[in-house]
Amino acid sequence: MSKADIGLIGLAVMGENLVLNMESKGFTVAVFNRTVEKVEKFVSGRGAGKNFIGCKSIEEFCASLERPRKVMMLVKAGAAVDALIEQVLPYLEEGDIIIDGGNSHYPDTIRRTEYVESKGLLYIGTGVSGGEEGALLGPSIMPGGSPAAWESVKPIFQKISAHTETGEPCCEWVGSDGAGHFVKMVHNGIEYGDMQMICETYQMMKEGLGLSNEEMHEVFKAWNESELDSYLIEITRDILGYKTEEGEAVIDSILDTAGQKGTGKWTAVSALDCGQPLTLIGEAVFARCLSALKDERVAASKVLSGPETSFDGDKAQMIEDLKQALYASKIVSYAQGYQLMRAAAAEHGWTLNNGEIALMWRGGCIIRSVFLGKIKEAFDSNPDLVNLLLDPFFKDAVENAQASWRRVIMKSAELGIPMPAIGAALAYFDGYRSERLPANLLQAQRDYFGAHTYERLDKPRGEFFHTNWTGRGGDTSASTYIA
Amino acid sequence: MSKADIGLIGLAVMGENLVLNMESKGFTVAVFNRTVEKVEKFVSGRGAGKNFIGCKSIEEFCASLERPRKVMMLVKAGAAVDALIEQVLPYLEEGDIIIDGGNSHYPDTIRRTEYVESKGLLYIGTGVSGGEEGALLGPSIMPGGSPAAWESVKPIFQKISAHTETGEPCCEWVGSDGAGHFVKMVHNGIEYGDMQMICETYQMMKEGLGLSNEEMHEVFKAWNESELDSYLIEITRDILGYKTEEGEAVIDSILDTAGQKGTGKWTAVSALDCGQPLTLIGEAVFARCLSALKDERVAASKVLSGPETSFDGDKAQMIEDLKQALYASKIVSYAQGYQLMRAAAAEHGWTLNNGEIALMWRGGCIIRSVFLGKIKEAFDSNPDLVNLLLDPFFKDAVENAQASWRRVIMKSAELGIPMPAIGAALAYFDGYRSERLPANLLQAQRDYFGAHTYERLDKPRGEFFHTNWTGRGGDTSASTYIA
Repeated sequence: MSKADIGLIGLAVMGENLVLNMESKGFTVAVFNRTVEKVEKFVSGRGAGKNFIGCKSIEEFCASLERPRKVMMLVKAGAAVDALIEQVLPYLEEGDIIIDGGNSHYPDTIRRTEYVESKGLLYIGTGVSGGEEGALLGPSIMPGGSPAAWESVKPIFQKISAHTETGEPCCEWVGSDGAGHFVKMVHNGIEYGDMQMICETYQMMKEGLGLSNEEMHEVFKAWNESELDSYLIEITRDILGYKTEEGEAVIDSILDTAGQKGTGKWTAVSALDCGQPLTLIGEAVFARCLSALKDERVAASKVLSGPETSFDGDKAQMIEDLKQALYASKIVSYAQGYQLMRAAAAEHGWTLNNGEIALMWRGGCIIRSVFLGKIKEAFDSNPDLVNLLLDPFFKDAVENAQASWRRVIMKSAELGIPMPAIGAALAYFDGYRSERLPANLLQAQRDYFGAHTYERLDKPRGEFFHTNWTGRGGDTSASTYIA
Repeated sequence: MSKADIGLIGLAVMGENLVLNMESKGFTVAVFNRTVEKVEKFVSGRGAGKNFIGCKSIEEFCASLERPRKVMMLVKAGAAVDALIEQVLPYLEEGDIIIDGGNSHYPDTIRRTEYVESKGLLYIGTGVSGGEEGALLGPSIMPGGSPAAWESVKPIFQKISAHTETGEPCCEWVGSDGAGHFVKMVHNGIEYGDMQMICETYQMMKEGLGLSNEEMHEVFKAWNESELDSYLIEITRDILGYKTEEGEAVIDSILDTAGQKGTGKWTAVSALDCGQPLTLIGEAVFARCLSALKDERVAASKVLSGPETSFDGDKAQMIEDLKQALYASKIVSYAQGYQLMRAAAAEHGWTLNNGEIALMWRGGCIIRSVFLGKIKEAFDSNPDLVNLLLDPFFKDAVENAQASWRRVIMKSAELGIPMPAIGAALAYFDGYRSERLPANLLQAQRDYFGAHTYERLDKPRGEFFHTNWTGRGGDTSASTYIA
């Protein structure tokens, strides 16, 4: 029996689809699962008659692999990954490659790369995005880890990944140790933001303009044929148009409570750690938290009343305004995401290629869009672009959209229909283009109550001043107490 | 020579003032500092002729303390605290108490309480707020740690702490291990929010209404005689009214760049970890991050243009609207802070007394205000209050303020003057009082691309459904892959 080109452990929906994808591209794939019956079920089911080697033990699984062995894991992030590494290590030899394709937190991947390399093996932590269908038909793949592993894995990964219309694979080497999982994490944070912004426009159309599902289906259909052309707009179109055989619009029966605590949260925490203002993703994560407080909201809705105003403007104009607001906010969201990647790359010593990252996200993954092609162009023409908003194309786009964007936020405040992410995006835009923000007052406050000192506009950075605002107190300045 | 009632290590501004406070209340205080010259300088300077025992070594310091020894540290949070614990341990005996009065992160305090208790000693991690002047005249003190330590420390802490007008000490036992530092952290997060909101109203008055420092000084003076009466409004009044002897308004020369990474960030991260929507504090922290990108902002201000609209309404009305917006947002901020404390208490097994916490913050600390008296009343009349917004007093206050609040956010969007925190507060209010949020669409999207399943409005919680939206794909649902 010939050996397998690669092996995969973990046959949930993503794993099944990913190995079916690999096999369809001509690779022989060994499969294993902790619950061994799943292997049997798969090999005699969806995998029947195909080049799979179903294995009943880790030992058998490792023995079935061509060297250097490529052991890919697609299991729950966390302790399960560490446990699995320990289980496969005894059956691997120098130069073999362990690949974690799950949603691991990048600090874990940094740690595991170092650990596995210390055993003489190579490690890859890779983001895989595209959901169920992407895994089957071609996901976006974002690998990082041991650079020496890339050449062995590249032919498989670039063949099974999505490709752009011009044939470029949505898979490229991201960087050392945790870089791949970091970029995947930011991808997911951006996905949180994209989804939340779409939900906010939906809420305004539904509650504010009183549109029906059919009408909103048409709106998203039109938006998907515009600069907003993207997978998430496309599926929103489909969801709003979907009815069961009995004629039920499923969307209206779904509980409005979303889970979080995953990669979106990590992105927000990472932004806080790096000191980068990812306000939109932060609001998107918090919006999921608030959605989860369903019982509290139901109770509060009976106590707290909002404005009694209802929409009496031009609906078509407001729909166009919503489109522009969504577009401009999306630019801000990606600008923020790239800001975080730049800061993290500097901190971790990664050399991230911003254009390649946009290309990897261009197809296959959940946030895939025509828009990402424009981001690639922006970074291709200026690899050192400090902020996406400064690229001429996006500068014009945002400036063209801003009157609409402002009208949407004004209407949201007036009608009492919350748009936390789109509102945060506008506040960020207005803050980012402000030479002066009111933090001078904040610094004065800190100096007043804590003698924290401040810098001056008319003096070089790094010179610190203290004012004895009250005339009381001594001349001792704060050095240990930071409020 | 008589022994000291308590000893303090760390003579920066907070430490100096705290021991002067203790001594003025009749306690004898031993002092030590790593740079020993500071001890000499203090004892012969500000401490001259008073009941201080200046010590040249840790050994001498510990020997000078009455038993059970109370060793208070006021040093930089982090490794310095651990190092100091190791240095004092050899000189302490069973039942002695180590007190950390710095801004330690509460998980460290949880760990240290356990460690010090394992050595047969007791530990207190306490928040101390009030800045330079509060430390001297009476700070807010929030102690947690080993419950058995409280009786020994209580007479000192409650005597040196601030007191309310009715004589109640702004110091009470918070809870076990890290509870004191946790509550102090939330206090600081709220402080970040309060400061940011004040800055936003300042920015609107300055840039939007074109008010002078003198005019804003008058506005804050009036606000400080209203329901907004608070320390931060008071010092803002003073700062805007302050001129040097040469007649310079210092506020206009201060660089608009604020530091962060401290307790505000921890509060936001803790909120993300607990899944609680602390949007206002999140925006306040991110606003500091954005302020820090001064060079980027200066460059962007030359590229990105905003609206050309200028304010042409009734200035007096807008000032009143700003006051109401600030007040309503402040209620939201405290509601969010209490939401986080409730969630964290459940997670860590603390029994927090919400009314007592409001009382501790009522005086001495940076966020002290008349407002906190109302919060205490709210929790006194209903200790199980789920959200501050549901208390009758605050419900009325927010509802009365909301027309103004909405006008402010509309004007902010129209004029392009960023108000991220006040805007986030309004979006939270509108979200919290929404029986239905658009997360049904979000859940549909997740089910569409990842087979994540959803719950239904017409079915009990805990039943999960999946729709085959596309008609393609199998019947395997996701179990490991959470986007």
